[in-house]
Amino acid sequence: MENSELRRDPITGRWAIILMDEKIDFDKLLSSKSHRERSNEVKACQFCEGREDQTPSEIFALRHPNTEPNAPGWQVRVIPDKRPVLQIRGDIDNRAVGIYDVLNGIGAHELLIEHPQHFVNIPDFPLEQMKGVLSTMQNRIVELKKDPRFRYIIVHKNYGEASGTTLEHAYSHIIALPVTPGRVKNELMAAKEYYSFKQRCIFCDVVRQELEQKERIVAEDGNFLAFTPFASRRPFEVWMLPEKHETFFEQNSNQGALASMLITVMGKIRQMLKNPDYIITLHSGPNINVSRRRGYWKTLKSDFHWHLEVVPLLRSYTSFELGSGFPINSVPPEIAARVLREESF
Amino acid sequence: MENSELRRDPITGRWAIILMDEKIDFDKLLSSKSHRERSNEVKACQFCEGREDQTPSEIFALRHPNTEPNAPGWQVRVIPDKRPVLQIRGDIDNRAVGIYDVLNGIGAHELLIEHPQHFVNIPDFPLEQMKGVLSTMQNRIVELKKDPRFRYIIVHKNYGEASGTTLEHAYSHIIALPVTPGRVKNELMAAKEYYSFKQRCIFCDVVRQELEQKERIVAEDGNFLAFTPFASRRPFEVWMLPEKHETFFEQNSNQGALASMLITVMGKIRQMLKNPDYIITLHSGPNINVSRRRGYWKTLKSDFHWHLEVVPLLRSYTSFELGSGFPINSVPPEIAARVLREESF
Repeated sequence: MENSELRRDPITGRWAIILMDEKIDFDKLLSSKSHRERSNEVKACQFCEGREDQTPSEIFALRHPNTEPNAPGWQVRVIPDKRPVLQIRGDIDNRAVGIYDVLNGIGAHELLIEHPQHFVNIPDFPLEQMKGVLSTMQNRIVELKKDPRFRYIIVHKNYGEASGTTLEHAYSHIIALPVTPGRVKNELMAAKEYYSFKQRCIFCDVVRQELEQKERIVAEDGNFLAFTPFASRRPFEVWMLPEKHETFFEQNSNQGALASMLITVMGKIRQMLKNPDYIITLHSGPNINVSRRRGYWKTLKSDFHWHLEVVPLLRSYTSFELGSGFPINSVPPEIAARVLREESF
Repeated sequence: MENSELRRDPITGRWAIILMDEKIDFDKLLSSKSHRERSNEVKACQFCEGREDQTPSEIFALRHPNTEPNAPGWQVRVIPDKRPVLQIRGDIDNRAVGIYDVLNGIGAHELLIEHPQHFVNIPDFPLEQMKGVLSTMQNRIVELKKDPRFRYIIVHKNYGEASGTTLEHAYSHIIALPVTPGRVKNELMAAKEYYSFKQRCIFCDVVRQELEQKERIVAEDGNFLAFTPFASRRPFEVWMLPEKHETFFEQNSNQGALASMLITVMGKIRQMLKNPDYIITLHSGPNINVSRRRGYWKTLKSDFHWHLEVVPLLRSYTSFELGSGFPINSVPPEIAARVLREESF
């Protein structure tokens, strides 16, 4: 007989079943095929330094002085995806098909190569490398937001086959969209509604409570908080966000502290969870160059708070979760935080 | 370069990217590990007739006359799950932890064994067998809704490892919950809002348009419609619903037509998609024995329309889909419908 709780996500109102049985079978949880041994084979791929001719021309790069575009000598490099799911050229054509709505597939799909070498991932990055990755994300978001066709810029990283990539080289996606992705929109709407009731940011309220309760903190440095959300969907889900209110990731000026925390937290995940596959998604404010015109987001700067969502993929989704949108999480976030803090549990 | 469209789900407003390239690589799509050869080995499991002593005592069964409970002679059998994620006993205790909400894990978790024999699945069912399964679902929903602790009863079936089950014997889950699952709640809220604008059921409007356009119909008999939704999240997603407005699955009196359509459609999916893993989820109206008290669902009977969602699991979710809630579907629903109608495309 399992002991369980139903917990409500304070932001979107989505409930999760949290199995509270403290005898967690970590061996089983960490034995799935989503865990990878780091190969010792010296490999190279199209993303490696020296193979710039195998990729499309770079859109942006952090480079050593006196190096040429599309040649070695870079620290971080952004290229267009070879097979984008959305096209960069064309106007937005919004049409109705009876009661249905269609837009043509306009958008941008860029790949951010995070390191010149193969097999080097976030926990191995020197601080300056991680800062370079974050400042490049900011740079691309600022540029893409100048295009009034793009309502939302989403940045996400996938690591390992369970996340849908077969590439081993560290990279992220930057995708600009003419509409807001469903999960982000749910958060934006809910944060707006909370603000209209309470005149407070829901994320700031969560930060306050997490800092007080201390039960779900993974790392904390006075600038950024990494914690396991109260109604975590998945085992060892971790959110990272600035402790002071900030709406847009690209306006963050404390990239050193964020870079340091990312290296620390992703290192703990690699060490304690045996190098699992994972995804990281940035949820930041939408493009107000588009949105402001609509007058819809008038409280946005007060109500929304950017954050990174890290989700290790330790097991498959169950049919119940897929069909109902009701997560079942076998590791209470309080225990997940203790494991990641390397305390006994 | 891919040609794509952004399509908006008319019910929840969720967008999907649909890749419109007609040169679909079916071999690749149908070669994933989620396709199973039917084994010829004679197997048996705890769900097989004759092994009733290996399961918990039955809650309900359709049985031949003069047979005893928990003995052979049944057509359909319902048992409690051995390791339920929610407990049947106890009162709902709704408490706050600071700004967070928690309920204790009260609920019911039942398993419906759909056939006495191993390896017999929906496409093989005689009509009477399928009708027995559907009437048993109705029976259990009606019973569980008498319990005012349960706000929602969800029925879902998983088939194959990609859906999270290792069992081969045909069965479904019936889960009673004190809260409404996220995906269903989004639909309920959106249908309510549409009705308040238009005084029409959004699902009825969808049925009308699909019957007119005919492009996405998989099967249709004047009573039930099976179609591939305009903004399908996944390749070959199929929805089935009554053509006339009906809020609650358990009130449907035309189970013969529904049983016949399910056997037909699941047979087409097995044949045309090489026996893929899949999930089926029933989205029906909530328990108004609970909800009516709150006065919230006063237009429910006019605004919501039950339906079955069938989702073949031909590939894994990508990191972009998981992190953003923005599906990318490589098979336009118009082509999926043609394939399932066994027309050339």
